[in-house]
Amino acid sequence: MTSVDRYDYVIVGGGPAGMTAASRVKRLKPSARVAVFERSSYVSYAPCGTPYYIGGLVDSLDKLVHYTVEEFRRRGIDVFTRVEVVDAGNGFVEVRSKDGERKVEWGKIIVATGARPRLPPIKGLDLEGVFTLRTLEDAERVKDQVEKAQRVAVIGGGYIGLELAENLRRLGKHVLLFEILPHVMPNLDTDVAAIVEEELLGNGVELHLAEGVDEIMGGERVEEVATSEGVYEADLVLVATGVKPETQLPEKLGVKLGASGAVAVNKRMETGVEGVYAAGDVAEAINLVTGKPDWFPLAPVANKMGYVAGVNAAGGYVEFPGAVGTAVTKVFDLEVGRTGLTEERAVREGFDPVSVRVKAGTRSSYYPGATEVTVKLVADRRTGRLLGGQFVGREGVLARVNTLAALLSKGATVEDLFYTDLGYAPPFAPVWDPLIVASRVLLRELKGVE
Amino acid sequence: MTSVDRYDYVIVGGGPAGMTAASRVKRLKPSARVAVFERSSYVSYAPCGTPYYIGGLVDSLDKLVHYTVEEFRRRGIDVFTRVEVVDAGNGFVEVRSKDGERKVEWGKIIVATGARPRLPPIKGLDLEGVFTLRTLEDAERVKDQVEKAQRVAVIGGGYIGLELAENLRRLGKHVLLFEILPHVMPNLDTDVAAIVEEELLGNGVELHLAEGVDEIMGGERVEEVATSEGVYEADLVLVATGVKPETQLPEKLGVKLGASGAVAVNKRMETGVEGVYAAGDVAEAINLVTGKPDWFPLAPVANKMGYVAGVNAAGGYVEFPGAVGTAVTKVFDLEVGRTGLTEERAVREGFDPVSVRVKAGTRSSYYPGATEVTVKLVADRRTGRLLGGQFVGREGVLARVNTLAALLSKGATVEDLFYTDLGYAPPFAPVWDPLIVASRVLLRELKGVE
Repeated sequence: MTSVDRYDYVIVGGGPAGMTAASRVKRLKPSARVAVFERSSYVSYAPCGTPYYIGGLVDSLDKLVHYTVEEFRRRGIDVFTRVEVVDAGNGFVEVRSKDGERKVEWGKIIVATGARPRLPPIKGLDLEGVFTLRTLEDAERVKDQVEKAQRVAVIGGGYIGLELAENLRRLGKHVLLFEILPHVMPNLDTDVAAIVEEELLGNGVELHLAEGVDEIMGGERVEEVATSEGVYEADLVLVATGVKPETQLPEKLGVKLGASGAVAVNKRMETGVEGVYAAGDVAEAINLVTGKPDWFPLAPVANKMGYVAGVNAAGGYVEFPGAVGTAVTKVFDLEVGRTGLTEERAVREGFDPVSVRVKAGTRSSYYPGATEVTVKLVADRRTGRLLGGQFVGREGVLARVNTLAALLSKGATVEDLFYTDLGYAPPFAPVWDPLIVASRVLLRELKGVE
Repeated sequence: MTSVDRYDYVIVGGGPAGMTAASRVKRLKPSARVAVFERSSYVSYAPCGTPYYIGGLVDSLDKLVHYTVEEFRRRGIDVFTRVEVVDAGNGFVEVRSKDGERKVEWGKIIVATGARPRLPPIKGLDLEGVFTLRTLEDAERVKDQVEKAQRVAVIGGGYIGLELAENLRRLGKHVLLFEILPHVMPNLDTDVAAIVEEELLGNGVELHLAEGVDEIMGGERVEEVATSEGVYEADLVLVATGVKPETQLPEKLGVKLGASGAVAVNKRMETGVEGVYAAGDVAEAINLVTGKPDWFPLAPVANKMGYVAGVNAAGGYVEFPGAVGTAVTKVFDLEVGRTGLTEERAVREGFDPVSVRVKAGTRSSYYPGATEVTVKLVADRRTGRLLGGQFVGREGVLARVNTLAALLSKGATVEDLFYTDLGYAPPFAPVWDPLIVASRVLLRELKGVE
């Protein structure tokens, strides 16, 4: 670390939000002194790529880094890695590195500390051979151990858990997937998740639903996993039970947390404490479907929040309108997408949802390679407004989920969707696109025979 | 034909619009007598599939028929094929079949006569071996002759011309493509069309741009094609120079045509003449970007217009808001999509357009198979409103063009697009989707450094 101990801008966290914010600030205020403090060895990395590194599809961790520390330094940003922020308050942070602790003053601070694994109350998490997967270093450690493993237990059936299962199967491992809920992917409705479960089973994943892991057992190293239902041999355990916002630092800075547990911010990413911004997985954003603050720990949202925080901190004026919770993933040969509210969540939010689930062709039926995609659409019965959708199929999911996401963010109705002018070409989409088919069935539900 | 000579509803034209309208009417008014008169032998067919039939990807013409005549008859719709409507007036049509002519009275009539080839002033179009491609019968005739052909001249570089070129190359034919304009695909801007032209050349198409065909020469059968630049041997000629609305019947019914030459209708598909509706390629629709009537001879638009005409004719009330002109096609291994206005068209419409053209990754850069897609976005400088977009790449075009189409139909701005919550997953889309990348560059153009 240099001897400088005052920065105009301090950014804590070198992930997508933090580095996007730092870049904006430096670009808009070239003469400002900008520092980034990052706990790990990397900045600007793509943690979502780590399952594919473990599975061997990506051959080097370096490829998961968008820009290196050196590139940011060349832009005039002082990036410090392997640095922990251990205390903070009005106008200062206290940072700790291998060289010791020191106080750093800031004019403005952007909190982009992200999220950390939410660990379930399982005994034995400290055994050798038990890992969470958040940073690139985590991925490196797992990669080192996975080669000699035979039976790998994955705890958690969310995106990361399923991507790990796929990649471990690619390596020929026996995969036991434990999910405490009755279905995988809590962001899908039960009926849609069932399709994903079939794909997992069809690809040889030993699937244990509604089966929480109580204990990981072994001498120094994991040997067995004990659940409510039984005891299973395993020589490697990957815990992918979700994340929670990393709020220790912002709490020290005196900012308020929202109902989600993440930092409450306005549309400019201001926390309410003078000079303190928050962006990325640590912060809330407006859910454009419910109109209420929500938590979207997703990289594209984090990036945009970082952009907005950076521009505003540098004296500009932009607002982040919010998000709808669009997510897409690949589970073996299945494409899975979701956006907005599930039917189950819509009920919890107080809507009276009406939904349809249809299977419709991804291409003209006569064109080689045509398959079917399952589309579930959810709308508000009273207003006809679209609330969300889920998509599962072998191709073309991104097109449908993104189109719906765009309409959701504009408050569109089912009728709007039906009349949306979507592309048609035999190799890509039938003349009645699956989205249009689903909206037509839903219109019938909403309005009668028409 | 039966002896009945009065129908509550007469639909003229058995294509997508006509059959969708007929089905709606019969569904909403089960006791009504509904007749469809169709000139060819097929109804409810997909003419867009005919290039793939010629190329052998689709092995039977029957596969291009969504529903057969018999299926519609089972639903209680009297479908008459190989019938020409030769005259019409207030409450009647005069139809001609192999059994002779007869008068048929109607209570309401839905004109869905579609479009017919727009033939350029070329001498020799009547020679043997010269074809247009509009009906399934046309495709059958071309298919019969293509086998023994060696050198095929395709006149016209629009969607159909390019799809024909691809399919003829698949059959190993030497393909000469003549386009009178300086670039292929008039619905693309010149700079984007250039990418398509490279693909054609790379796949061995002999491309003649800015080269109009003056004469097709030969004895009884085509032997040569003469253009402004030279004379070329050819033993088969396919004319794909676009279409124009088939307005003879509606003109006899006294309806007004719009500036586009197609039938002027309101949002309920009413023509202004009592009891006369028009739908599909014969009719205009509102261009949601310009706000003005326009002509969109595209199957998805035709289908929806048929739906709206049918519901309204049957006594319901629905409105067709309009279209944005979304189209997508495959040119060899290239996916090409467009929606809204091109930059060139935007200028003609009186906008002050600002545009960007970027190349951006279709997947996370580290994920195997990642390629780049070219995105051109056009916006209105004064308001920041999106006007249109064009997309060319090896994958993922449908996702981007449909998302933009959805936003265009809601009058969205460049800023709206930038903040749209699009899906991210390494196998399908990078964290900054190509659409978001392009909108960010365009925002910078519109608003300065931010």
